[in-house]
Amino acid sequence: MRKEIELAIIGAGIAGVAASVYAKRSGLEFSIFEAKGVGGQLLLMEGIDNYIGLETGTKGRELAKNLIKTLKDLEIDITNQEILKVELEEKKIILYTTECVYSAEGAIIATGANFAKLGFKGEAEFLGKGISYCAVCDGFFFKGRDVVVVGGGNTAVEEALYLADIADKVTLIHRRDQLRAMEYLKKKLLAKDNIEVIFDSIVKEVKGSNLLKEVVIESTKNGKSQTLATAGLFVAIGIKPNTEIFKSIISQEKGFIVSDEEMRSSVDFIWACGDCRQRPLKQLITAAAEGAIAALSAYKYLKGHYISV
Amino acid sequence: MRKEIELAIIGAGIAGVAASVYAKRSGLEFSIFEAKGVGGQLLLMEGIDNYIGLETGTKGRELAKNLIKTLKDLEIDITNQEILKVELEEKKIILYTTECVYSAEGAIIATGANFAKLGFKGEAEFLGKGISYCAVCDGFFFKGRDVVVVGGGNTAVEEALYLADIADKVTLIHRRDQLRAMEYLKKKLLAKDNIEVIFDSIVKEVKGSNLLKEVVIESTKNGKSQTLATAGLFVAIGIKPNTEIFKSIISQEKGFIVSDEEMRSSVDFIWACGDCRQRPLKQLITAAAEGAIAALSAYKYLKGHYISV
Repeated sequence: MRKEIELAIIGAGIAGVAASVYAKRSGLEFSIFEAKGVGGQLLLMEGIDNYIGLETGTKGRELAKNLIKTLKDLEIDITNQEILKVELEEKKIILYTTECVYSAEGAIIATGANFAKLGFKGEAEFLGKGISYCAVCDGFFFKGRDVVVVGGGNTAVEEALYLADIADKVTLIHRRDQLRAMEYLKKKLLAKDNIEVIFDSIVKEVKGSNLLKEVVIESTKNGKSQTLATAGLFVAIGIKPNTEIFKSIISQEKGFIVSDEEMRSSVDFIWACGDCRQRPLKQLITAAAEGAIAALSAYKYLKGHYISV
Repeated sequence: MRKEIELAIIGAGIAGVAASVYAKRSGLEFSIFEAKGVGGQLLLMEGIDNYIGLETGTKGRELAKNLIKTLKDLEIDITNQEILKVELEEKKIILYTTECVYSAEGAIIATGANFAKLGFKGEAEFLGKGISYCAVCDGFFFKGRDVVVVGGGNTAVEEALYLADIADKVTLIHRRDQLRAMEYLKKKLLAKDNIEVIFDSIVKEVKGSNLLKEVVIESTKNGKSQTLATAGLFVAIGIKPNTEIFKSIISQEKGFIVSDEEMRSSVDFIWACGDCRQRPLKQLITAAAEGAIAALSAYKYLKGHYISV
């Protein structure tokens, strides 16, 4: 038997929680689905320093606790079921979870993304202690110091360029003999005198005491190792949105869901927000804002009228 | 003599502060101009309940204090000067303040807006104690209760419709004998059996003890008064963006600055964010997100490269 619901919110990271708060306050009936913990990637963040309004250095777990409290205050219960499959059916989206089948008149997708990991020794251990996956988030802490960036695509070159304006020196490590990044980015890179590129090399291991101090790299040509002293290592090999189950029903670009500034996807009763969405800036603050906008867009569609302020 | 600066951020409400945080962290050189206090409209907000990550009921002044602390932590000084006039000059924006002339390579406009006030007796006194200018922000507190909305345009009808889904009964007061709102909105309004419209009437006064209890309205036809018992009064006569000085240099729509999802205005080295900008949802959380995006767009323009994450 199917459970009929007005709106499904899929994912309880900051985008999904924001959507829930605005959906609740607008009087929509909805279920929010999350198979893991409230907060999503937040739970992995050591210190948050650019979420406007929160104290610098707030731990991801603390912000996640705030989100849980907000949900409780508003009497929003999490449906703790994983969505395994989705289908469209006329003007409905059908959600198959581990336990049940839901039929919803609208859905907000807020399933997030994960940074791709390299898997070298120490990668998890030094997360937030020198290892980062986001130069905009953490670059500032390495002002005037030496940092290493790993990767060879657009993201890696962009991050190296960004960090070159802040750090003293940037070393870019790439496993191949040339970069995959776009030409104009490569030109920019060459023009910077504080970026050095080391080709044909992979990261084997990082070392430190409490904080990161050294990175051991190995040549893919001759297997020789060398150790670089560094305060920061930025892994920039991409981000993978959690959008696989929506591939057949919705437009995506490299896996990211395409949506407009009102968060409308290619299906007029599905909205996307946060890291699973194609957008200009992937940050906690933008994810939260997008969740709010998605909820009001859903409200507009489901209730047939809009609220402009 | 002119002071040459890389980037001007105009306004230190939450959008301008967010832009400053991201500009600082990306290594841009900038000045942030604010003639009044940090926080802008925040300073007038009694309790904030939909800023994701903050505790429900956080006072506007508390959030403003957090913003001031963030600026201090990042060593960002406010330039406490009012900008009286702006001009474009080739690839520069020239800012004339009360004390000085600045020439900037780029500018982020974050000058905010103000809700239009009616000016009746008790309007200021009961702000946040029953009087509100934003149904999305405050409607939730009137769940199952009676509320009054004042106005006759799209905003007023939208707010009445929104509140009708939450409140028990909505009374819409309009000074003329018909609504100015669009036809489809008027039809929606008529279809709701819990909205009553009182035409040809203005609000004279509100009364209460600590919280709002009554609103006194007067007929514009015969001058007769009547008193309505109500828990909430929503003034919905519009919002006025603080964009007058930019009118001659930048595209606007009803005074709001037109910009795209990356906050680019019609001038390629000027970005707009927050309430001064035309956008789908005017909320603190969207203003903060837009400030962050504007700063990264400015960074992209000024440094000639972009950072995608």
